[in-house]
Amino acid sequence: MNDINETSPIGVFDSGLGGLTVARELRARLPRENLVYFGDTARVPYGTKSAATVQRFAGQCLRFLLSHRPKLLVVACNTASALALDALKSEFPVPVIGVLEPGAQAAVAVARAMPGNGGAGTRIGLIATEATINSNAYTAAVRRLDPKIHVLARACPLLVPLIEEGRPPTDAVVSLVLKEYLQPFMELHVSALILGCTHYPILAEAIAAVLPGVTLIDSARQTALVVSDLLATMPATAAGQSNGTLTCYVTDQGQRFERLASRFLGQSVGQPIWVTPEMLEAEIRN
Amino acid sequence: MNDINETSPIGVFDSGLGGLTVARELRARLPRENLVYFGDTARVPYGTKSAATVQRFAGQCLRFLLSHRPKLLVVACNTASALALDALKSEFPVPVIGVLEPGAQAAVAVARAMPGNGGAGTRIGLIATEATINSNAYTAAVRRLDPKIHVLARACPLLVPLIEEGRPPTDAVVSLVLKEYLQPFMELHVSALILGCTHYPILAEAIAAVLPGVTLIDSARQTALVVSDLLATMPATAAGQSNGTLTCYVTDQGQRFERLASRFLGQSVGQPIWVTPEMLEAEIRN
Repeated sequence: MNDINETSPIGVFDSGLGGLTVARELRARLPRENLVYFGDTARVPYGTKSAATVQRFAGQCLRFLLSHRPKLLVVACNTASALALDALKSEFPVPVIGVLEPGAQAAVAVARAMPGNGGAGTRIGLIATEATINSNAYTAAVRRLDPKIHVLARACPLLVPLIEEGRPPTDAVVSLVLKEYLQPFMELHVSALILGCTHYPILAEAIAAVLPGVTLIDSARQTALVVSDLLATMPATAAGQSNGTLTCYVTDQGQRFERLASRFLGQSVGQPIWVTPEMLEAEIRN
Repeated sequence: MNDINETSPIGVFDSGLGGLTVARELRARLPRENLVYFGDTARVPYGTKSAATVQRFAGQCLRFLLSHRPKLLVVACNTASALALDALKSEFPVPVIGVLEPGAQAAVAVARAMPGNGGAGTRIGLIATEATINSNAYTAAVRRLDPKIHVLARACPLLVPLIEEGRPPTDAVVSLVLKEYLQPFMELHVSALILGCTHYPILAEAIAAVLPGVTLIDSARQTALVVSDLLATMPATAAGQSNGTLTCYVTDQGQRFERLASRFLGQSVGQPIWVTPEMLEAEIRN
């Protein structure tokens, strides 16, 4: 990939629209970079699916993004990062950054900094999709950084549909569900809670209200930091005064992405470009 | 299709595992028929997706089922019935039965039979996925049968994840969500409520408790009746004493389908056969 320069985009891949929380953080931290976002909205969600399927879908989407000659690729989807990143990293000629390692690193740093912590009793909480939890990838990442830290994990399958339904954090159902899901973390005194799904930062305030004193780890923000650090070591960092662009591609037709996107991106996203399955296949073959 | 005989299967297609409620009713009513079930578990759910995507996916799945030389095809998925049935029906050389018309017919019959009803004030309720509601297909089907009947429709996106999480009907979150979703039907005195998603019959008792006096329309049961009536007119009805078989195909690998299936089918389903995307493409081409 010799043709990468400062206008080359950062490719951001997610199973749907949740990865826009990562795009938002990238835009805040790296406003001059061009972003190309790919949401696999025709096959979303990945969080209930097998590793074989997630690896296959994620590979197709990243190969599509690669055709835009990105300077690096971000796997914004926690499930894809947990199930497919290791298998995919070696396949691509540009750096591939997942959201899992940055989140795990930040959580371990918080746990170690807590007064009275740092011993065998140190506990980190994790909420994520069923597939991310079952993969044990976050637990393994934390253990690699500090084998004494224990990860308490809980799948929270209702949170994504609650958020996509547009319910406010004060909604009665949201409150009841959060209390139920977060009860074990309250009782077991975790120092940090990893929000292990791109949707969850939307409910960060409501989660913080249930778990006072627990540091919430927003993987989106941590990943933007890692990307920023990496770009600083690369000659292709975007300079100049002009703001970068954001172009969105999706696999499902229709208005749903555009309608829900602003809640995740913090601003309007405009109409995304529909990538038909034929286009996806054609781009991948070239 | 000259090679259809009494051992030819009934093909049942659903976006995931909810269509097993239809398979269950077919087995109860037509125990000697062989069933081939296809669940598109790699791309489930359809209920948040566009008509273009649902038509494409449903077409692929039905073409796969057609390769098993079925005597007829049942589209057990409400979303696919609402968005794709008309487009697909003409493509296949065997009868294609959706769940929508049978559900609408039963609801209209209930509404007309209610004392004091039958006039302009007659109301039917509908709960379904976002895509089914937005398609207006149920409303159009009811209007075709009786233009004076008014359909009150509400999308209930939390019910499928609540059911797949395995929550009992008495669960506090289930109760709260049902009360909220069903409130408008209580206030507006509907005579019948169409359970317009294959998952919903699992919560029938809890729904009935919130809406006393309202007749619940289980499309799965109504569809089995229509299939039974149609088969009675065909020479290929299975006879003899032996019980029919049920073979399940899914597009996602993994244990999730098998683990959740018994709740929908009412009995264990055994391990389904994984259809890789390559197999799906190959079957479709032949």
